[in-house]
Amino acid sequence: MSKEASSDIGLIGLAVMGQNLVLNMADHGYHVSVYNRTTTRMTAFVDRVQNEEPCSERVHGYESLEEFVASIKRPRKVILLVKTGRGTDAAIDSLLPHMEEGDIVIDGGNAHWMDTIRREKDIRARGLHFMGSGVSGGELGARFGPALMPGGSDEAWTSLQPIWEAIAAKVDPDTGKPYEDYAAGKPITEGTPCTAYLGPDGAGHYVKMVHNGIEYVDMQLICESYFLMKELLSMQPDEIAAVFHDWNQGVLDSYLIEITADILAQRDPRDASRFLVDQVLDTAGQKGTGKWTSISTLDLGIPANAMAEAVFARFLSALKVERVAASQVLKGPGVEFSGDQQEFIDLIRQALYSSKICAYAQGFSLMTEAQQEFNWQLDFGTIAKVWRGGCIIRARFLQKITDAYDNDPELANLMLDPYFRDALHDGQSAWRKVVAAAAESGIAVPAFMSALAYFDGYRSAVLPANLLQAQRDYFGAHTYERTDEERGRFFHVDWPVDGRPEIEV
Amino acid sequence: MSKEASSDIGLIGLAVMGQNLVLNMADHGYHVSVYNRTTTRMTAFVDRVQNEEPCSERVHGYESLEEFVASIKRPRKVILLVKTGRGTDAAIDSLLPHMEEGDIVIDGGNAHWMDTIRREKDIRARGLHFMGSGVSGGELGARFGPALMPGGSDEAWTSLQPIWEAIAAKVDPDTGKPYEDYAAGKPITEGTPCTAYLGPDGAGHYVKMVHNGIEYVDMQLICESYFLMKELLSMQPDEIAAVFHDWNQGVLDSYLIEITADILAQRDPRDASRFLVDQVLDTAGQKGTGKWTSISTLDLGIPANAMAEAVFARFLSALKVERVAASQVLKGPGVEFSGDQQEFIDLIRQALYSSKICAYAQGFSLMTEAQQEFNWQLDFGTIAKVWRGGCIIRARFLQKITDAYDNDPELANLMLDPYFRDALHDGQSAWRKVVAAAAESGIAVPAFMSALAYFDGYRSAVLPANLLQAQRDYFGAHTYERTDEERGRFFHVDWPVDGRPEIEV
Repeated sequence: MSKEASSDIGLIGLAVMGQNLVLNMADHGYHVSVYNRTTTRMTAFVDRVQNEEPCSERVHGYESLEEFVASIKRPRKVILLVKTGRGTDAAIDSLLPHMEEGDIVIDGGNAHWMDTIRREKDIRARGLHFMGSGVSGGELGARFGPALMPGGSDEAWTSLQPIWEAIAAKVDPDTGKPYEDYAAGKPITEGTPCTAYLGPDGAGHYVKMVHNGIEYVDMQLICESYFLMKELLSMQPDEIAAVFHDWNQGVLDSYLIEITADILAQRDPRDASRFLVDQVLDTAGQKGTGKWTSISTLDLGIPANAMAEAVFARFLSALKVERVAASQVLKGPGVEFSGDQQEFIDLIRQALYSSKICAYAQGFSLMTEAQQEFNWQLDFGTIAKVWRGGCIIRARFLQKITDAYDNDPELANLMLDPYFRDALHDGQSAWRKVVAAAAESGIAVPAFMSALAYFDGYRSAVLPANLLQAQRDYFGAHTYERTDEERGRFFHVDWPVDGRPEIEV
Repeated sequence: MSKEASSDIGLIGLAVMGQNLVLNMADHGYHVSVYNRTTTRMTAFVDRVQNEEPCSERVHGYESLEEFVASIKRPRKVILLVKTGRGTDAAIDSLLPHMEEGDIVIDGGNAHWMDTIRREKDIRARGLHFMGSGVSGGELGARFGPALMPGGSDEAWTSLQPIWEAIAAKVDPDTGKPYEDYAAGKPITEGTPCTAYLGPDGAGHYVKMVHNGIEYVDMQLICESYFLMKELLSMQPDEIAAVFHDWNQGVLDSYLIEITADILAQRDPRDASRFLVDQVLDTAGQKGTGKWTSISTLDLGIPANAMAEAVFARFLSALKVERVAASQVLKGPGVEFSGDQQEFIDLIRQALYSSKICAYAQGFSLMTEAQQEFNWQLDFGTIAKVWRGGCIIRARFLQKITDAYDNDPELANLMLDPYFRDALHDGQSAWRKVVAAAAESGIAVPAFMSALAYFDGYRSAVLPANLLQAQRDYFGAHTYERTDEERGRFFHVDWPVDGRPEIEV
């Protein structure tokens, strides 16, 4: 093992994501020092890499933190990919005594942005730099090109930028489509990298969290589409796979639609006469970022109902035993479909696309409010650009979001952009039919429904909250505003007897 | 002002709720010492009370905390009705130095239950008692009989119980119907009091919070019913008032339905030719307890989507300027109704009742999980009993919930109780038609829809989360369980190529 300061960067935490990020950096010519709390994991990784060209010469393992840190050129850059929460704090505590002024710590985990804000402040006070950078794309993304969402010290970014841009996913600058051909085994060096400095302290981790919140809805909407084809249209997985494959040629073109087609076509490894998806248990796990996003929408007062519904749908899926028991007690209307199957499939496609627009509208609304709350200046066009490749929600669609914010950086809501407005106008009739059919046939489509309620609520100049506010004034004297007075004047009446005077409060 | 320790109880914080609670206690023969940080508010209140018999002799004001505390018989009981959060902490800090071992502090505000847990622990460590007691019923409830939801020191409860039972709302022990005839101006002393000890530390405040979360949905469901009658059936407020008045004679019989009928019939005090509700601005406020409830459902993994939708609906209502602008850009399908108006009104009634059952099912599911998390033993039948009178959600319906938990204290979900199961079976056809009609005519009914999706999801033995979990395994190696293996065994496949082996993780 080398003991000179010759590495370009270091990485702590050699689970799969960490390993793959190291290999990705090495692919691009960087020398990477690696350290893991459990040394055997480090040595096993370094041994494995000996057989992988061109990485073998560029990955350097260390058993002690001190030697690890000493091996990195200054200003040192050390990436943490450890268990989030206390794991990150513990790693920082053990690392910092070896680091020097101007060195840079980069947290690549899914940290809560408030933790990132706290850590950035603490580490800055000690004369070092801290960045929180979301990494999306799963294992393959980390290996061959993730979307990277850095926030934190802008000074540190200058130093990290070349590496981040080298290892990030790349998209075609003309079409916005990601380069994803890993077949040659060569690093992708051309194209626009899917990374950009997003803002101070927790901005990167917040944007990554919203990415995940949107991912939850994207996945739930696909599941509801599948559910309708399976339950209402009685289609088999391979038939549904063909539909998703077909959809992937159009506006829905995206990674999640693509892998859904793959998944539905996959045979059970135990018995090739059946489909694996039919053997997979219908209980979805979650790691908390979707939940954080929904909590943030509640805290910031943003009506992002589809994002919350996607989280609740996972919770409900987890109640498998309860659901099986309930299915024996609570009976539905009986599922019947009489109509043209192909026609209905296209209605579902339009419902999916319309709902998806609403989900993204909610995510961007949330970020619009969050930047006010946390003093960031987020560039929404850039965020959509970063998401075009590498990450789980990558999609042709994102180019349209970038275009929308390029056209109008002050856009109040994505649905108001002409492209998305037209898409919603075109799709709403189908979407309404699908929701009505699901309601009448007893098929749960909470994300389709909540997105539709959001669309209809948002475009309603008048909602029934006048009654609600009157109720609040009736039982709690919470006052009301009047349509025929300017905003900010509050009135109260001693309900319910006609003729009692209105007083201004 | 008296200086002997002759008062039965003390109260700090003389806003309307505090004042009314004092008068209620005095009505029932208790001597109450009162204190307010701003002395003028205290003296104004005491002056006013001089003219109110029989309270005049029983309310004793103090300008100093020391004298206030000294005036109360031991063990002293002091109720706080101050601004929640820091206001409560400040009041406790200034009060405690004057209190002695065994004395009792009761927080009657809408405190966050985690704050109550913290305060109870701190105060217990100092040898005193702390109770957090939710008070529901608005101003009138506080004056003539609120629902009281105490949690905290059980020893302190013995001492507080007679007062709490005296001042609480009362219901007819046979019918469960509240006694609400205040006309005679006499305190109600007969009947079953709407209060009970709910459990240690934060239990009372948690139950009160869930009450408020349910209240949010109850109100939103009523608003959606009103919205459909107004927009789809083109009915006038007084016509809709008559409908609610009629509904209040049946299973929907409740305080909120009753006041809704009152509100819709009320004329504008400025111009008796029009209805006040039409002049009230459609932007609903909120004080945070509904939000806390939704955040708690997310933290505890409970799929309480209708509770969250009710909060989001208030958020959306607050975006008045955005909505008015959006209504010019985003066009709906045009509202059309062709059918029998009376028939459709009855469909709405059934949709409302069915959705309401789901809302309560979600609230009780949440409490079922919370008691595990926070080590309480909540008695759900008792909670429903406490809510039968005094509080905002009081309703004939609650007796059915008490019955359900009396029949089966281990009931997994309220919807499974025979009475509610039958109600849902009877109502679902109407409910589905209403949701379908709302979807097709562009009227936002997020609470009706989310409750229906909850019902349909909960009674689905199989949900589409198998696809979701397969997606998670595909891009993140998150593993899946299999329907043909026992729970707790996790598998992974290297998607997407058929023939790759499945490995157990």
